[in-house]
Amino acid sequence: MIQFVKKSCYILLFILTISCVSILSKTLKPDEPCKRIILYYHDILFNGTDLANATSAKVTNDTQLGSHFGMMVIFDDPMTEDGHLLSPPVARAQGFYFYDKKDTFNAWFAYTLIFNSSEYKGTLNIMGADPLPEKTRDLSVVGGTGDFFMARGIVTFRTDDFQGDFYFRLQMDIKLYECYKT
Amino acid sequence: MIQFVKKSCYILLFILTISCVSILSKTLKPDEPCKRIILYYHDILFNGTDLANATSAKVTNDTQLGSHFGMMVIFDDPMTEDGHLLSPPVARAQGFYFYDKKDTFNAWFAYTLIFNSSEYKGTLNIMGADPLPEKTRDLSVVGGTGDFFMARGIVTFRTDDFQGDFYFRLQMDIKLYECYKT
Amino acid sequence: MIQFVKKSCYILLFILTISCVSILSKTLKPDEPCKRIILYYHDILFNGTDLANATSAKVTNDTQLGSHFGMMVIFDDPMTEDGHLLSPPVARAQGFYFYDKKDTFNAWFAYTLIFNSSEYKGTLNIMGADPLPEKTRDLSVVGGTGDFFMARGIVTFRTDDFQGDFYFRLQMDIKLYECYKT
Repeated sequence: MIQFVKKSCYILLFILTISCVSILSKTLKPDEPCKRIILYYHDILFNGTDLANATSAKVTNDTQLGSHFGMMVIFDDPMTEDGHLLSPPVARAQGFYFYDKKDTFNAWFAYTLIFNSSEYKGTLNIMGADPLPEKTRDLSVVGGTGDFFMARGIVTFRTDDFQGDFYFRLQMDIKLYECYKT
Repeated sequence: MIQFVKKSCYILLFILTISCVSILSKTLKPDEPCKRIILYYHDILFNGTDLANATSAKVTNDTQLGSHFGMMVIFDDPMTEDGHLLSPPVARAQGFYFYDKKDTFNAWFAYTLIFNSSEYKGTLNIMGADPLPEKTRDLSVVGGTGDFFMARGIVTFRTDDFQGDFYFRLQMDIKLYECYKT
Repeated sequence: MIQFVKKSCYILLFILTISCVSILSKTLKPDEPCKRIILYYHDILFNGTDLANATSAKVTNDTQLGSHFGMMVIFDDPMTEDGHLLSPPVARAQGFYFYDKKDTFNAWFAYTLIFNSSEYKGTLNIMGADPLPEKTRDLSVVGGTGDFFMARGIVTFRTDDFQGDFYFRLQMDIKLYECYKT
């Protein structure tokens, strides 16, 4: 009988440890996000005349350090589900980026993704470095609101298109590892 | 006897699951923050002459895109417990905002709340979008220090007053969902 | 026998509560980070001629509010393990700071630490206030990628050197309280 009790207790201990650990380790695996959304970011920089189409504008000038070092851009950019600029936007990206390296193009972003669609209502707040020569760049999702209440995660940038100085497109692969049902 | 042991184990399992889940779910309910602070933010933009009273200043100019798109403001603003500008400040808000939309006033904030009062010593770091036409806007508390060590949460903005171009007041309803006793 | 079962259950309950709490409380103690890295940040502001050595540049001008209020600097600064500027950098700090107070030097930082060494590959994203008159200033680590996947923590700044307007050095004491093995 005592053996039985001990066995039961060990089994119980095992089950609870596993369940406790599994609950806690939800957030631990890079390839197992609790939510994943892939969107495309379109940035049309104001060129001085194209007021109707522009979605962003330069607010500080290049310094003498080269590679646009010091140029800051504020944007309100459409986010689409595919790579087509004219697809219906499912979110807006609002924030800024600037160039910060002398010898190559290297940017830094901080922005908010604002969702107001039938699928999602809420925001994701994002910041991090964007070293353009790398094929993929990881930034941090540092918070969320609405349907993304208290979310955290990673956004992976891939350059999808680059047309001269005034249009570029990024694939943003958004992976959340902390998701809370509200 | 075996029945009794089984029953005990089930009860124990139940209690532990509930307690584990309740510990973990502390952070999950938007209407149950572990700490809530409501403060008022007063922004007095430097108008070129009012050096004594100004708490913020424009550092980049409006672009041609309209609605102040591109204008960035750096601030060191007093935070009061009621809506009166001259009430004793209980914290400072230090950071910046900028306007980022063509067709309406829409801002983006990143700043630190610095508490140095008898009640709180420490900081809260905040970022997010502020779409002014919305009655309430949610931003993310992405970190904290001192009494707010490692905190996370949501700040809800409500426009409380708007006087021309040089004064506005926001109610900031700060709700923390991750609180750590240090 | 029933006594024995009860006793066993109490012991089990105790062990599980302790283990549950200890797992959860990992992140709670300021003096027990799960990882700690101390690095030195070197900022050489472009003075108009020193193109080769400069690591940062001013992008907005001082306003009339004084104490450099409104001056923003974008940087790509080397991080070294000791206080020597010429030591091999183990990381880069990319981001910006600006001055935001009328009566004293007071700054605000947002930046990314980019590690690409044999020891670490990944990034840490950081933001917060830097009130220079204080001996130590705490900012928030709000996210991480790569080896610092999903990290959070605190960075403590100490001014290590200040040479006129164009060079300063900070000790950055990085303490992570949320670490995830990937």
